Amino acid sequence: MTNLILCGGAGTRLWPLSRRATPKQFVDLIGGQTLFGRTVARNLALVDSYIIVTGAEQYPLAKAQFKAAAHGEMKVGFILEPLGRNTAPAIALACLGLPPEEIVLVTPSDHEITDQKAYLAAAAVAREAAEEGWLATFGITAAYPETGYGYIEAGTPTRDSLFLSVRAFKEKPDLSTAEAYVKAGRYYWNSGMFCFSAGRFLEELGRYAPDMLETAKKAREAGIAVSPKGQGAPDVVTIPKAEMEAIPAQSIDYAVMEKADRVAVVPCDIGWNDLGSWDAIYEIRSKDGSHNASNEGLMAINSTRNLVMGPGKRIILLDVEDLIVIDTPDALLVARRSRSQDVKAVVDALKAGGLEDQGLL
Amino acid sequence: MTNLILCGGAGTRLWPLSRRATPKQFVDLIGGQTLFGRTVARNLALVDSYIIVTGAEQYPLAKAQFKAAAHGEMKVGFILEPLGRNTAPAIALACLGLPPEEIVLVTPSDHEITDQKAYLAAAAVAREAAEEGWLATFGITAAYPETGYGYIEAGTPTRDSLFLSVRAFKEKPDLSTAEAYVKAGRYYWNSGMFCFSAGRFLEELGRYAPDMLETAKKAREAGIAVSPKGQGAPDVVTIPKAEMEAIPAQSIDYAVMEKADRVAVVPCDIGWNDLGSWDAIYEIRSKDGSHNASNEGLMAINSTRNLVMGPGKRIILLDVEDLIVIDTPDALLVARRSRSQDVKAVVDALKAGGLEDQGLL
Repeated sequence: MTNLILCGGAGTRLWPLSRRATPKQFVDLIGGQTLFGRTVARNLALVDSYIIVTGAEQYPLAKAQFKAAAHGEMKVGFILEPLGRNTAPAIALACLGLPPEEIVLVTPSDHEITDQKAYLAAAAVAREAAEEGWLATFGITAAYPETGYGYIEAGTPTRDSLFLSVRAFKEKPDLSTAEAYVKAGRYYWNSGMFCFSAGRFLEELGRYAPDMLETAKKAREAGIAVSPKGQGAPDVVTIPKAEMEAIPAQSIDYAVMEKADRVAVVPCDIGWNDLGSWDAIYEIRSKDGSHNASNEGLMAINSTRNLVMGPGKRIILLDVEDLIVIDTPDALLVARRSRSQDVKAVVDALKAGGLEDQGLL
Repeated sequence: MTNLILCGGAGTRLWPLSRRATPKQFVDLIGGQTLFGRTVARNLALVDSYIIVTGAEQYPLAKAQFKAAAHGEMKVGFILEPLGRNTAPAIALACLGLPPEEIVLVTPSDHEITDQKAYLAAAAVAREAAEEGWLATFGITAAYPETGYGYIEAGTPTRDSLFLSVRAFKEKPDLSTAEAYVKAGRYYWNSGMFCFSAGRFLEELGRYAPDMLETAKKAREAGIAVSPKGQGAPDVVTIPKAEMEAIPAQSIDYAVMEKADRVAVVPCDIGWNDLGSWDAIYEIRSKDGSHNASNEGLMAINSTRNLVMGPGKRIILLDVEDLIVIDTPDALLVARRSRSQDVKAVVDALKAGGLEDQGLL
């Protein structure tokens, strides 16, 4: 099985630590390894090779962090995109380089999974489903009516009940709809993880998005392959810009999953967290006695429930609570924790002000 | 008249911008000139020479900022202290180098005065009193019962009522005492500004603190005088450490003013502010439409009544109010505005942790 890791996300809701040059997945957000490094490590026992799809700008980071996480002993290929075209093209570009029977475990690079044992069990079920020809998704038990995620509606259980057929994919719901989903019980959070054989995915892609398959083939053929050591399969394929731009930008859900036959959901309770906001980072991090989460160097006086990140800096909090304080050399964010979802809007506003060119975003 | 500017303060309550190497008076706190530069500029029309008493470490800053503020055309001498011994020794060291009849206007370097016209009028009255042999103080009309200042109790008005004799100096009062002072009307805030002839001050010092006068004389004689251009009076006198340490450390109030005869108070309403906390800096600075005070580079979203300083940095506030955010390259303070007096305690705690040696304090 190959682990296809998608590293194209920008993670703007975790600005200013996460930015174009150093997106969320390559930053130390929760202490210890980066999210990308944790993703690699998480799958070491499951797979025998990796394909990393990432931006050309991020290649040096990805290469170094992969090497550290895999201890340099795992087969890996990189596909470098000159620009992002959402998930379906990224997955297609990877699958086009694999034998049709190869099982592909598609994972984001920027999520956290705390229950490794449950994860390994779920992945084993997904692999089994994939080997039987299913396109498997991982459905996270919906712990509460979250409005920030898409949902997967389960249909008929398979004969051994380890996974279920999928009835429908649901867009991010409003609160009352989300409440109804949780109450109904057969709805799961869509985690963005998938498992299928390369051939089955490309077959369904050819059926429902033939234009994408064709343009992806051309882009892959035009790709500049470089094998650093001059032997074996190419390690790095760089897709040219013109060919990349020709591929329609669509998510795998929209392009394939919502339309395909034999789509399965593996229900799982694996301690999944998409770390989609600073508040989510706060929730997952360890805290001190005053419920502050921080790196070294924090001095909190009469201050509680704050998230503070500012590597290498002495930070003092005095009589403040429920704040997010994220410091970097050129930008500082001080935000109310409950409003951390709005950081994306901040970045959009800064972008509109032309600050992207200064490396600030 | 000579303006004696005392620059020995550390301004720890304005940490982390104010610190030993760059104390409060030499930092741009309220926009435009530094407080030291503003002090020099404020007195240009009043005096024909300056004496600056400051720490040896601060001399380059003081010299450069003096030159900029005085446009390089004013006579100036520097007395460099190897360590601070409070105000009375600093004033003695300066007066010992002046003719006895020279009128000395003693001013802190770290206060703000917004009504220049009223200040010039008050200084003229103080000068007149000094020429008549008084030791004049500047008493600020007590606008409210402040517990952070000392008070001057006025006695008999002089014949022309422009100034009054002083009955007593009062330590920082508790709130009910301060309220009684304000109600009584004859109590003024002690601004730390004085005016007298050099001879009269030294005469009273010799009477009430003879040991200080003697040790100050020895220190002044042991001082290493350097005239950068090799001609005229020495520009810079550096006091040796051993001789400085031999001088008793006392304030001018305690050593002289509280005991001397013919002490006067010039009542004045001059827009005085001792800028003794970040909250005071907030109050005096200009604000945007959401009552935020900041340097350039602030983006405040749904955020009000904050003071933000972080030169050269992009700072984003999101849904926060009444905060102080002070960013420097190696330290960041985020504090509730009403608690800004406690910053001194923070610095003391950091000092106890041995952080002074790292230049952080």
